[in-house]
Amino acid sequence: MEQLHIDHITKRYGHQVVLDDLSFDLAPGKIYGLLGRNGAGKSTLLNIITSRIFPTAGTIKLGDQDGRDNDAVLGQFYLMSEANLYPKRTTVRRMFDMADESYGGFDYQNADRLLKEFGVPSTAQLSNLSTGLQTAAKLTVALSVNAAFILLDEPVLGLDANHREVFYKELIKTYQNKPRTFVLSTHLIDEIQQVVEHVFIIDDHHLVEEGDVQAMLDKAYAISGPTKDVDEYTNGLRVLAQDELGNVKTAYVYNQLDDQRILPDRVKIGHYDLQHLFIYLTNGGTNNE
Amino acid sequence: MEQLHIDHITKRYGHQVVLDDLSFDLAPGKIYGLLGRNGAGKSTLLNIITSRIFPTAGTIKLGDQDGRDNDAVLGQFYLMSEANLYPKRTTVRRMFDMADESYGGFDYQNADRLLKEFGVPSTAQLSNLSTGLQTAAKLTVALSVNAAFILLDEPVLGLDANHREVFYKELIKTYQNKPRTFVLSTHLIDEIQQVVEHVFIIDDHHLVEEGDVQAMLDKAYAISGPTKDVDEYTNGLRVLAQDELGNVKTAYVYNQLDDQRILPDRVKIGHYDLQHLFIYLTNGGTNNE
Repeated sequence: MEQLHIDHITKRYGHQVVLDDLSFDLAPGKIYGLLGRNGAGKSTLLNIITSRIFPTAGTIKLGDQDGRDNDAVLGQFYLMSEANLYPKRTTVRRMFDMADESYGGFDYQNADRLLKEFGVPSTAQLSNLSTGLQTAAKLTVALSVNAAFILLDEPVLGLDANHREVFYKELIKTYQNKPRTFVLSTHLIDEIQQVVEHVFIIDDHHLVEEGDVQAMLDKAYAISGPTKDVDEYTNGLRVLAQDELGNVKTAYVYNQLDDQRILPDRVKIGHYDLQHLFIYLTNGGTNNE
Repeated sequence: MEQLHIDHITKRYGHQVVLDDLSFDLAPGKIYGLLGRNGAGKSTLLNIITSRIFPTAGTIKLGDQDGRDNDAVLGQFYLMSEANLYPKRTTVRRMFDMADESYGGFDYQNADRLLKEFGVPSTAQLSNLSTGLQTAAKLTVALSVNAAFILLDEPVLGLDANHREVFYKELIKTYQNKPRTFVLSTHLIDEIQQVVEHVFIIDDHHLVEEGDVQAMLDKAYAISGPTKDVDEYTNGLRVLAQDELGNVKTAYVYNQLDDQRILPDRVKIGHYDLQHLFIYLTNGGTNNE
């Protein structure tokens, strides 16, 4: 299986820029997070990758094959989205058949098992289900379809905590049984920190950061102590945000720490999580240089 | 300010039981969580407290005054819900005026500050905003209205991580400035663990657990080790769930631990969080007695 290349993708509607020159690759057999604030352009990007809409500029290639109007390439991608593109009165069972007709090799056994886990009747019509159960039915299809790249736009919309837990466990289980690429676009960043290997962060229509989650978290330090000492310690480092209360400060640094840095006994060094890293990166950081 | 008594509330629609004999009290000046799976009856309960719908049986009393048809009592309650009950073309600014007309003493200064934080224009029509910004506008009203009991049904619906962080911070800030009672009904239990003092858990239309969060978490132990030792250690304890891999087991206990319990060196004792406690309590537990 080959790499998917997203190459200089730009999307404009009139004068409005939705995506501005995004480039990155997706490797086969990896679980990715696609993170961005509301309106950042994540859904547009997922729709472009799957040729539901076309970019103003740029290309999507699988290996060296252009995805546009290429059924062999498009047959590798499955997009689960909030939009309900099924005809009225489509039953859950019919959704399975449609995925089988389009992609072949639909895993009915896995799908039936998942429906039971989620408590969704296979005879129900999709549009008669609650938001949470509609999501559960769509996830059941997405985790059982035979595609190499599975893109999930808001995969936990309306799910309660129990159903979210089922989804994360089943995602990992299906991935271990048959490694393929998943892209999760979600606002619940805390919950996917343990699930995704690599994230892309879009802000203000640009790709502002990408990397392996562990490597990113290794640079996410919370430095706290007396303001004077924290300022001295963080001098020259990239500080994304800071909290101050009286003359005690915490600075949220995104930087490798130099072993020779002074004062380690007057400041406390901890870590912060992926969700906060995302918030600080996309709120606009300050640079304490 | 007096206690709010929810007293033997039952709600049936025909043969369908939505709430079955719920009783609990809400104290003035406290932040509560109302937790339950999709369809558990949380929204129905909030609508009953605020007299938007009437119970089949039971009463809502503030001190010794019945809430039903009592404007002096109802004027103490504000409900923010997913439903959009505003007339078409209502602007955000008009929402403020309506809250002021109904409750008096609306905090316009706080509301204007919050709109800026959320990036919502005050001249926008509510129905033209995205789901996330509609929620932000409604939260702005809820955090600025002059009521003693403020009930928030799905307060973070559609909000991205940055806006959720703003909401939690502003909730605590407004509560510290002017303590009043908040009830948060949400599926993002991890995120409110630090915010709420006391939770109510509804399952299968009953109140199955309530308590101060810290006291509940103090009883939430994860016991892991060789299966035989874990089974011996947890004998007689309330075990809500267990994971087993090979002959290593983790048992999720919800119980005080006896100091004299044997084998502490062969099992490892940790804690688990509120979201998992909720999941285990509402998935139906097993009792290892």
